[in-house]
Order: sequence, then C-alpha cells, then structure tokens
Amino acid sequence: MEKIHPSHQGHSRQEIIEILEGLAPPELAEPFDSGRIGLIVEGKNEINRINTCLDVTPTVVRAAIAQNADLLVAHHTPIWNPLTRINGDNALLLSEILSSGLNVYVMHTNWDHAPGGVNDILADILGLTDTTPMSLGLVGTCSITLEEITQKLHAPLRIWGKMHSIRRLAIVAGSGFDIDIIHEATRLGADAFLSAELRHSVFRSSPIPLLESTHYALESPSMRVLAEKYGWNYIDDPPQLLTHA
Amino acid sequence: MEKIHPSHQGHSRQEIIEILEGLAPPELAEPFDSGRIGLIVEGKNEINRINTCLDVTPTVVRAAIAQNADLLVAHHTPIWNPLTRINGDNALLLSEILSSGLNVYVMHTNWDHAPGGVNDILADILGLTDTTPMSLGLVGTCSITLEEITQKLHAPLRIWGKMHSIRRLAIVAGSGFDIDIIHEATRLGADAFLSAELRHSVFRSSPIPLLESTHYALESPSMRVLAEKYGWNYIDDPPQLLTHA
Amino acid sequence: MEKIHPSHQGHSRQEIIEILEGLAPPELAEPFDSGRIGLIVEGKNEINRINTCLDVTPTVVRAAIAQNADLLVAHHTPIWNPLTRINGDNALLLSEILSSGLNVYVMHTNWDHAPGGVNDILADILGLTDTTPMSLGLVGTCSITLEEITQKLHAPLRIWGKMHSIRRLAIVAGSGFDIDIIHEATRLGADAFLSAELRHSVFRSSPIPLLESTHYALESPSMRVLAEKYGWNYIDDPPQLLTHA
Amino acid sequence: MEKIHPSHQGHSRQEIIEILEGLAPPELAEPFDSGRIGLIVEGKNEINRINTCLDVTPTVVRAAIAQNADLLVAHHTPIWNPLTRINGDNALLLSEILSSGLNVYVMHTNWDHAPGGVNDILADILGLTDTTPMSLGLVGTCSITLEEITQKLHAPLRIWGKMHSIRRLAIVAGSGFDIDIIHEATRLGADAFLSAELRHSVFRSSPIPLLESTHYALESPSMRVLAEKYGWNYIDDPPQLLTHA
Amino acid sequence: MEKIHPSHQGHSRQEIIEILEGLAPPELAEPFDSGRIGLIVEGKNEINRINTCLDVTPTVVRAAIAQNADLLVAHHTPIWNPLTRINGDNALLLSEILSSGLNVYVMHTNWDHAPGGVNDILADILGLTDTTPMSLGLVGTCSITLEEITQKLHAPLRIWGKMHSIRRLAIVAGSGFDIDIIHEATRLGADAFLSAELRHSVFRSSPIPLLESTHYALESPSMRVLAEKYGWNYIDDPPQLLTHA
Amino acid sequence: MEKIHPSHQGHSRQEIIEILEGLAPPELAEPFDSGRIGLIVEGKNEINRINTCLDVTPTVVRAAIAQNADLLVAHHTPIWNPLTRINGDNALLLSEILSSGLNVYVMHTNWDHAPGGVNDILADILGLTDTTPMSLGLVGTCSITLEEITQKLHAPLRIWGKMHSIRRLAIVAGSGFDIDIIHEATRLGADAFLSAELRHSVFRSSPIPLLESTHYALESPSMRVLAEKYGWNYIDDPPQLLTHA
Repeated sequence: MEKIHPSHQGHSRQEIIEILEGLAPPELAEPFDSGRIGLIVEGKNEINRINTCLDVTPTVVRAAIAQNADLLVAHHTPIWNPLTRINGDNALLLSEILSSGLNVYVMHTNWDHAPGGVNDILADILGLTDTTPMSLGLVGTCSITLEEITQKLHAPLRIWGKMHSIRRLAIVAGSGFDIDIIHEATRLGADAFLSAELRHSVFRSSPIPLLESTHYALESPSMRVLAEKYGWNYIDDPPQLLTHA
Repeated sequence: MEKIHPSHQGHSRQEIIEILEGLAPPELAEPFDSGRIGLIVEGKNEINRINTCLDVTPTVVRAAIAQNADLLVAHHTPIWNPLTRINGDNALLLSEILSSGLNVYVMHTNWDHAPGGVNDILADILGLTDTTPMSLGLVGTCSITLEEITQKLHAPLRIWGKMHSIRRLAIVAGSGFDIDIIHEATRLGADAFLSAELRHSVFRSSPIPLLESTHYALESPSMRVLAEKYGWNYIDDPPQLLTHA
Repeated sequence: MEKIHPSHQGHSRQEIIEILEGLAPPELAEPFDSGRIGLIVEGKNEINRINTCLDVTPTVVRAAIAQNADLLVAHHTPIWNPLTRINGDNALLLSEILSSGLNVYVMHTNWDHAPGGVNDILADILGLTDTTPMSLGLVGTCSITLEEITQKLHAPLRIWGKMHSIRRLAIVAGSGFDIDIIHEATRLGADAFLSAELRHSVFRSSPIPLLESTHYALESPSMRVLAEKYGWNYIDDPPQLLTHA
Repeated sequence: MEKIHPSHQGHSRQEIIEILEGLAPPELAEPFDSGRIGLIVEGKNEINRINTCLDVTPTVVRAAIAQNADLLVAHHTPIWNPLTRINGDNALLLSEILSSGLNVYVMHTNWDHAPGGVNDILADILGLTDTTPMSLGLVGTCSITLEEITQKLHAPLRIWGKMHSIRRLAIVAGSGFDIDIIHEATRLGADAFLSAELRHSVFRSSPIPLLESTHYALESPSMRVLAEKYGWNYIDDPPQLLTHA
Repeated sequence: MEKIHPSHQGHSRQEIIEILEGLAPPELAEPFDSGRIGLIVEGKNEINRINTCLDVTPTVVRAAIAQNADLLVAHHTPIWNPLTRINGDNALLLSEILSSGLNVYVMHTNWDHAPGGVNDILADILGLTDTTPMSLGLVGTCSITLEEITQKLHAPLRIWGKMHSIRRLAIVAGSGFDIDIIHEATRLGADAFLSAELRHSVFRSSPIPLLESTHYALESPSMRVLAEKYGWNYIDDPPQLLTHA
Repeated sequence: MEKIHPSHQGHSRQEIIEILEGLAPPELAEPFDSGRIGLIVEGKNEINRINTCLDVTPTVVRAAIAQNADLLVAHHTPIWNPLTRINGDNALLLSEILSSGLNVYVMHTNWDHAPGGVNDILADILGLTDTTPMSLGLVGTCSITLEEITQKLHAPLRIWGKMHSIRRLAIVAGSGFDIDIIHEATRLGADAFLSAELRHSVFRSSPIPLLESTHYALESPSMRVLAEKYGWNYIDDPPQLLTHA
C-alpha cells in the first residue's frame, strides 16, 4: 500500500478509518473490547497529520498536539472504564484532546489478532521463522540468544524456570501468560514462552520456562512499525524501569 | 441562607458543592443514580457565576458560556449512558463544556426526594396545602381549577378518566405514573394524580383520574426557584409543543 | 378469505385459532411475549360468535357476554404479570370470563409485526403510500394535514419540536418512541415520527419532530378492521381523555 | 380457642384469615413461598362453612362445593407455577372454584414451621415425648414399633439401612430427607429419621437408617386435626397406593 | 465384541477408555454432567482386571481392591460436589483409591441415553417388545405381571393410582418421574410408567398410574450386564430395604 | 507462646489447628477463600512433626514426607479450582499426600490480614518503623536502600517510575498492585509502593513509583518465620529466576 503523504493534501477521517479497519478488522476484536476500539474521541473531519502511540498518556497527547496531529492511533483506549463523569486526570486529558480537535482511534485486540499485526511484527523483530499461529500469538524457530532478545526489546528480561537452549519460542505480545495458551505452545513444540506480567500461580503450573519482558516492550513495536510503514510519526513514551538483581 | 453574590468575590468549587449537597443530600438519591449525580464535568476551581437549568442541552451550554458561567447546576445529567467513546453530539457538547472550563453539577433523584426540593416547589406553585408526603411526591389540598393548573405549568394538560372535582391532588414531578404510587395516593385520599409520561397500561389500572402534564413543566420550576433563591441565573429551554385536539 | 358466518354453524375453537395464527403468526412475537399470546383463557370448544377488542376491560367482557360471544380476540393480554393468586379486580374479571365459558385469545407483538397487521392497518387509515418497513412500524408518503391525522385517529395529537411540512411520515403503533427506531426513520427520510407515550429524554435526543397520539388511537383500528373483515363485532372502549392547552 | 360454629352466624373472611394467620404466621414461611400462601383465590366475603384439605384436587373442590363450603383451607397451593394463561386442567378447576365463590386459603411452610403445626401434630400422632426442635421438624423419644407407626400413618413404610431399635426418632413431615437435616438429627441423638420422598444419593450418605412414608401420610393429619379443633370438615383424598414386596 | 481376557495380557487404560466411550459416548451426556463423567480418578496405566458397580461405596472399593482390580467402572461419580478440600469420608475413600492405584471411570447420563445402555438393558430384563424411545427412557409392550416385575427387579414396587392391566409400559431407569416425560409417555400410548423417587406433586398431576421401584433396582442391572458381556466382575452393593405395608 | 516440641509427645490435630486459627483467624479471610483455607487434606489424627511452606509443590511434599512430617502448613492451597476429577499432576500430588497420611493446612488471606502475619513479618524484615495499616498491607518509615531491599528479599527488584529517595514505603505482600490501595498509600504519605506482579495499566495510573519484587520473595518469609517461632521446619522451594537487563 502506498504511503499517505500528509503534506500534499488532507484526507477525510473516513478514508483513514477505512485503511485502519483494513489493517485491524474490528470483527477480530475480543467481545470485551466492544465499544472500546475504533474512533474513541471524535475531533476534526479532515486529517493531515497522523501520529501513533501505545498509550494515550498526557505526554503523548501534548506531543501530538505540538506536532499538529489530527489523528492519534493508539493500541490502548484512554477510556477503559465506562464514564458517567469526567473529572480528575480524565478531565484534563479529554479537555486537551477535545479542545484541540484531535481524533483518537484505537486498535486493540483486533490488532493483536490481525495478520501482520502486533504478534507478527514482534516475530519479525525477533527474527522467528517457520511460525505457527496459536489461539493468541504464535510459535516460531528462534536463532538468537537471550541477550539478543533483551537488546531487541529494549527492556529487561526475567527467565523463570530451568532454561536450556531455545529452539522453538512461543510469543504472545502483551499480557499473555495464560496457562491454556502455555499448554497449547507446549503441544506445538515450544521450549520457552515469551510474554509479560507473569503471575506466580501460572509459573508454578508451567511445563516450560517462561521469559517475562514488559507489556510496553512487546506491544509498542507494532505501533512504531505501523507509523514507519505509512510515513506517520510514532510517539515513544516507555515506562521508566530499572532492575536491581 | 444568604445569597451568594457572584460579583463580589469568587468561591471555591468545593464551597458551592457543600451548599448544593446541603440542599440535595447525595444519600437521598436512588441507587440507579450512582455515579450520575454531583460533579459530572470538572472545570475551573474558582466559581464566580452560576447558572441552573433542567437539561444540559446545546442551547443551555451556549447560553451559560455566553454569560461567563463557571458552574451549571442541572437536574438531568448529560451522561446518562456510561461512555466508552466520545463522538457525535456528545463530542460537540463535551468539547464546548471542557474547552470553556464550565463545571456541570447534577442533582437528580436526591433533589426529587429532598425537603424543599422538586416536589415541594411544585406544590408551592400549585398552592397545595395540608400536604402529606408519599414514597415519591405528595398529596395536598387543591383549591384551583384545571385551567389554572394548566396556566401555572405553562404546558397543556391531558385529563384521563372521569374527572369530578379535585379536593386532594397527588403530584409527582417528572415521570411518576407508577401504579403502586397511584394506589398509595388513593389510600391517602387523593381524587386525582398529576405527573408526566402516562402509559396506557397504567391508565387502565388506575382507580382515580390522571392529569398528564409534561416532564419539563413539572420539574423545571425547581431549578428556576433554586436560581432565584441564590441570585443565580436560570436558563429556560422548554420543548416546543403544540396540541391538536 | 371468506367471512366466517357465525349464524350458520359453529366452528371448533381449533379451526378459529388456525385462522388467527395465519393472520398473526406466533413466531413473529417478541421473546417477552412468551406465554402471553394465543389462547389465554380456555372456555367452550365450539365457537359461534366472536368479538374483538384492544384491552380485556370489565366493560368489554360484559359486552361480550351480553352479546353471547364465545371468543374474545384481544390485542393486550389480561394477565401480563404471572399470577400465583387470583384476587381483587383479577378475581372479578376472571370469574366472569370463566363462568361464562368465554375464550380469550391474544395477538400482540406477533400482530404488530405481521404483514397486514397493526402497523399496516394504521398506514391504510392515514393513507400512507410508497411505504418502507422499519424494524418496527414503517415510513410512508403522507398527503394529509395534522388536523386530518387528528380526526382520523379520534384522539388529540401533540406535536413536539419544530414542525415544517410532512412529506414522509414514520409510524409505530403503540409505544414506539424508541431512539434507535427514530434514527432508523431519519435515515429512511422521515421528517416526522408518529407514535404514543413519548418520554422527555427521547424527545431531547430526536433529530426530527415527534407526533404523540395515544396508544388506544393507534392500535385499536387494527382490532376494528379485523372484526369488519370477518363479520365479527368490535367492542370499543376508549379511554376518556380531555385536553387543556 | 372456642369453636367457630358455622351454623349460627357468618363471619367475615377477614376475621377467619386473622385466626388462620395466628395459627400459621405468614412471616414463618420460606422465601420460595412468597405469593403462594394466604388467600390464593378470592371468593365470597361472608364465610359460613369451612373445609380443610391437603391438596386442592378436583375431587376435593367438588366435595367442598357439594357441602356449600365458602372457604377451603389447603396445605398446598393449586397455583404453584405462576400463570400467564388459564387452560387445560387449571381452567376447569379455577372455573369451578370461581363460579361457586369458594375462597381458597393456603398455609404451607408457615404451617410446617408453626408451633402446634404440621410437625407437632405428627409428633402427637406418633406419641413422641421429650421433643427437641430441628431447623425443620423435630426429634423425640419414640415408644412404639414400626408396625404401629405404619398403622398410625395409614400408609406403607420403607425402612432403608440396618434398623436396630428406635429410641429417638427424627421426623420431618413432607419431603424432608435433606442430608444437612439428617446430620443435625444425628447430632441430636436420633437413631432413625422419618420423612417422605427419599432420594438414592441421600440414602447413600446417611449415617442413620431412614424411614420413608408418604407425603400425604405425614402432612394430611395436620389438616384433619385443624378441622376437628374448630368444628370444620376435613376432606380426605389420599393417593391410591399398593405395595408389592 | 470379543471379551477382554484380563488373564492373558494387560491393556493400556487408553484402550479400555476407547471401548467404554464407544459404549457410552461422552457427547450423549447431559450438560450438568460436565466434568463428572469419564476418568474421575486416575490410577495405573496398565489395566489387567476390571470391576463394575453402581455407586463407588467403601464396600465396593474394598472389594475391588481385594480383587486386584485396576479399573472400576461406575454409574455414579464419587465426586458429585466439586471439592476444594478432601476430608472426612471423602478423604478415607479417595485415600484407599489413590493408594491402590485403582482407576475410577464413570458413565452416567451418557450411559442412560446410549443405545444398548441403561434403559435398553432394563427393557430387556422386563421383556418389553415393540419399544419406542422417549426423550429419556422408552415405551414398550409388557407381557408380565406386577408380581413378575417386582421379582425381576429384586426390590419392592409401589403402585400409585388406579391400576388396570398394563399393555404398554413406559420405563425410565433412575429418578425419571418428570411430568413432561409422563405426558410424552401418555401421548405414546403408555398405560403405566415405571421409575424411582416419585414426588407427591408429580403423582397429583399424572394422567396414568405410576410404578415406583428403587433407583438401585432400575439402574444396577446395566452395570451387571456390562460386566457379564466383557468377562469383568460386577460388585453388588444394594441398599438394605424392608417394607411394612 | 512456648515451642511445640515434636520429639517429646504428639499433639492431636485439633490442638494444632486451634493454635493456627489463633494466629490466622479464619474470619479474617476474603470471601473468595471460602472452602480454600483450613484443613484442606485430612490425614493422621496425631501430629508429631510439622513443616511449613509457601506452595504445596511436588518438591515440598516429597521433602515433608522424607522428614516424616504429619502436617504441612502452607500459604497457598493445592486445590484452588474445585475438583470433580483427580487426574494428571493433581492425582500424583494427592496420591503422595493421602498415601502418607500427611495433613495439609492452609492459611491464606486470613494470614495476610492477621496481626503478626504476612505483611507484618515482611515489614520486620525490611526494618520498617512507625507503621500504619492500610486496607491490605501497611505503610512504614524505611531507612534502607534499594540494594538492601533487594538483598533482604533474595530476589531481583524492578523500579518503575522516577525514584527519588524512599522515606515512607508502602508494602503489600503477594500480588498487591491495586490502584485503589496505591491511592490509599499515597494519601498516607507513601513515596514508593512495594509488591509483586505489576500490570502495565496500573503502572500508567500510579502517582508514585512502584517497586516490583516477586510473589515468593514477599510471602515466603512469613512461613519461614512461623516455622522458626514454633521449632518446626520450613521447606524452601523458590522459583528459579534469572534477569537479563
């Protein structure tokens, strides 16, 4: 698909939404995402400049406005819990967004599940080959070391359990340490499982070693690559994280 | 209670909220109003000018902003259905409110139930005496005619059933034609029942004649009287309504 | 279909039920009508005389018995709330019905949805042409005035909102002011919407003017026309209604 | 309490209801009996003749009408499942009841739990002494044999498990083989448990032998004794039951 | 199918499970049996000796262990209520089972519904011919007397209602006195209905006489016949039951 | 409390349970722990030797049996999900436990909430002073460095957010990064919050930096200290964990 050159001429919001729905079809979303994907905050109708991000943080919103963005494409909705009042941090954030006319568009579990989406982009970054899809995420042949994984993800890695070599690595971007998916990975020959936000009880039940990175490290590449592909701008806002071992 | 003179000096929002909570204590609200009363949109901290209204319509919001209001006290929340997205008419309305820093404060079923609240103000306007409270609304002695009721309410009146004279009139401001409350009124000696939004099946079960006015006609006086009492400004925005008989 | 001449020979109840099910197929009913349509009170097996009505009121039941009816076809069931006891007005009404052997048969939302049913008969009475069905009710071209609508419906009409001319009128017999259907009507080109029992919050959200008649005025024609078609007798029992404007 | 002589003068239904509520206070009923006790079918206001029964069967209703009864006091309601239609056997039974003006009054779990009620009357018939109440039913010292129990109950008795002698017998009139109550009885020293409608899985878990009589045999004495006490007439309609061993 | 000779060579548990699933396909089970059929306690992998039983009682378990059984095929699961703790009788029973490596396999409602299963075996024992299946159980022509039925079932029989001759007998092994199935049987021409655990209210509604045997008497033959067919051993543990009439 | 010397004489299980219930009163447990605390597997009645642990892993059970333990006191139940079948790893684990007669006793959220329990022991280890309880966990003055915290917990520490110095540290042993508790800690003056299993969305909402250790590191000290206090033996079985940063 050709690039959308924002400097030449504006597009209608509807045109851009159709492109985004092609990338992350809404019907791929999980039921709990009902009402939480697509156009979440409606601003201007004409779109000249597009930004992407993982989370709609105050830092991201201010950067988008400073860059005169008309549309911010995010992975996580800024309104997860349904609102009956707009106050506190929400009031500040929504006031900035609405005052500037910035549109916010979210692609979440539909982007996780999409071909070429969150998990496929992560697999590319790690150089996985011979991939097999799982109910969420995928298993692929891994030819890099743990050190290299850590470097490519720009985030610390915790290795839980007795690690031998990795030949087949299962990956689920985001919070994917689900015991049923881990068993699925094991049946598909995985000898390690990479995701984020491991719970103790899941570790205790896992038949294979678990590699715990961070939510941001695993999901944000998909929003960066999306921006690069279309000539948009990705706004990075990673968590500050230090490790004492 | 003395008037709050907005021209002299500003009050903090918290001071005003305490006054409003004294008038319509939050603990009097129905359970379904949870999250739908109190400060619904948070704007500026300092309050110099206050408006009241029944509904937070676009007309009302524009008038409030034109009058430099800092706080709009409404009976009906502008966010009844919990929001996971802000679009369409909601986006326009909330954008205007948030951009201007206007606070929106709602007193709903707590104001209906409060002594001196919606129903008591309606009783005053109709000149009811010897009033007895019901589970919602009240019964009082009525000494005016149907024509006079119509005039005082500034809205057409439908009389359902065989009307004799009215000695004791039950009133429930808003949508109060509930068959259990009608029976309660009958037990308390009411020979007519005034409310809004009558349903056919309720009429069929009613032992007494029913007087159907409009929601706006019955509830808006409480917001007008509230404004008058404190030297604030009431913004009127009644429905356009014509009757062919 | 030929007339069913009650004076010549009796029909079995089952024969009549099959005719009624052909007119208003039970499978068209809404789920909430489960157990509330069809034969609601079982009386005699042989049917010589049939009456129709909108509601099974005491007035209607006495008239039906006085006319020696064996079957009363109604739009609204006399047992909406499931009974575990039979007392008060219910005991009186059911006692009269059961003592006389009168059958009561109800066609409700299946008759609303049926081709040639409640809404189509209302459209005929108003002379609508070029009709398009909606999820409930229909939109049609209207060539009569508001005064003529009022006269044909034999009930007062309230016009809510700024009324221009009506070219395309949406109608939903009964209590049909549902905001989703109003939006559907708007998309189909309606410039006004006729139904009954308007709620204030729906009016506030409506993009087109709303014409509020009464439940009885909109639904009873279907029971009168049904009786005329088959040579039965329709028993009229409209609400007493006066308007002060 | 003195007898209510029906031949001398009529009582209002309300007077009789107050007596019955004194015997079986409605507040003792189980929650599932909500709406299923008290005046279930409302007939005449004046009560000259009263009958009692266990079940409101066609046989019982016809006998009550033949005896010119105005009130039938039953243990089991004739409308257990809430009705939205009245047809089949229900239509026949309710038609007979409503046509004759017979009132039907039900005392069920409130009568089970009442002092002097179903279980106490059963204990009297079996001659139990030194009784201790359980959460339902009671435990008492038993000085009669199994043969005598069978004779007094006029129904066959099944003995499940290894029976030694009975010193302390637990009884729950009706369907009371609940494993928690059986354990309660065991803790209270019972060496056998008498009730009706034993399920196999309960037998398998019981630490003491179980005596299974019939529902009718255990509960109907309370309605017979009630009639005798007040000079009313008890209508017996036991199940036909034969045993092949 | 040929016999599985335990003395010659062992089978894997999986082989035996496949045979049992062929007899009682898991997909025939009722939804409430989810998790309660199939391999309930996992023991040894190699199966040389198989026992069958109705209930997994302590008597049965001890007999199975004494006979060096590796697999116990039961009709009723020993873990009906989901366990979060293992104590009391459960601890003793499960300790014996787990210590000995005995496998417990359950076929319950899948065996009830299976062709050649519980109900078909009962029909064979009673010599029913020209059978027609019902939603549960079946109806067949019966040419034996009540005395013969009692003898073949080795348990007392209660006959409820007016018994004429039996030409067509409906049977539901287990606790099958469901009023809907009784009506189904009546429509299929049954003049009596045999099952276990009759409730009084069902008797009151039944249009045909009811024959009440015991749960054990009706279901255990299927486990005995199953054992005989494959050369396994059936462990009998009937309830002790005496009748006083 | 004096030590319980296992070598001298046995105690009844009930005596030991009373001591444990005194330490972690069952009524302090969360509702979701219903059925999941207390005696989870019932073994021998006489207790001579007691072990403690965090999780009932195969490693722990084998060590307890090798040490001839009669009772294993654990923080996490081995049967979290209610069982209707015992198979796979569960069958192996429960078989070892039941065969050996080992009792398993669990103190979970009652031990978390108990004075002197999980959180108080963690506070002692970190040397917190001037502690204030929260709805879960506590806030205290911290005089050690992040390096020292890491050393005392024997597990890596992740610091999320901009860390200044720690004066007041909030701690919740286990998985306690709940946004409401974090806000509670902030109101109580905490400038950092230590717990385990941080989720990305909680981090994004937190007003203070978060210190993420491991579930095992934070909770196991309470079981070790408990053992030391009474002269029992603690069985350590930490997760294998390596960090690449």
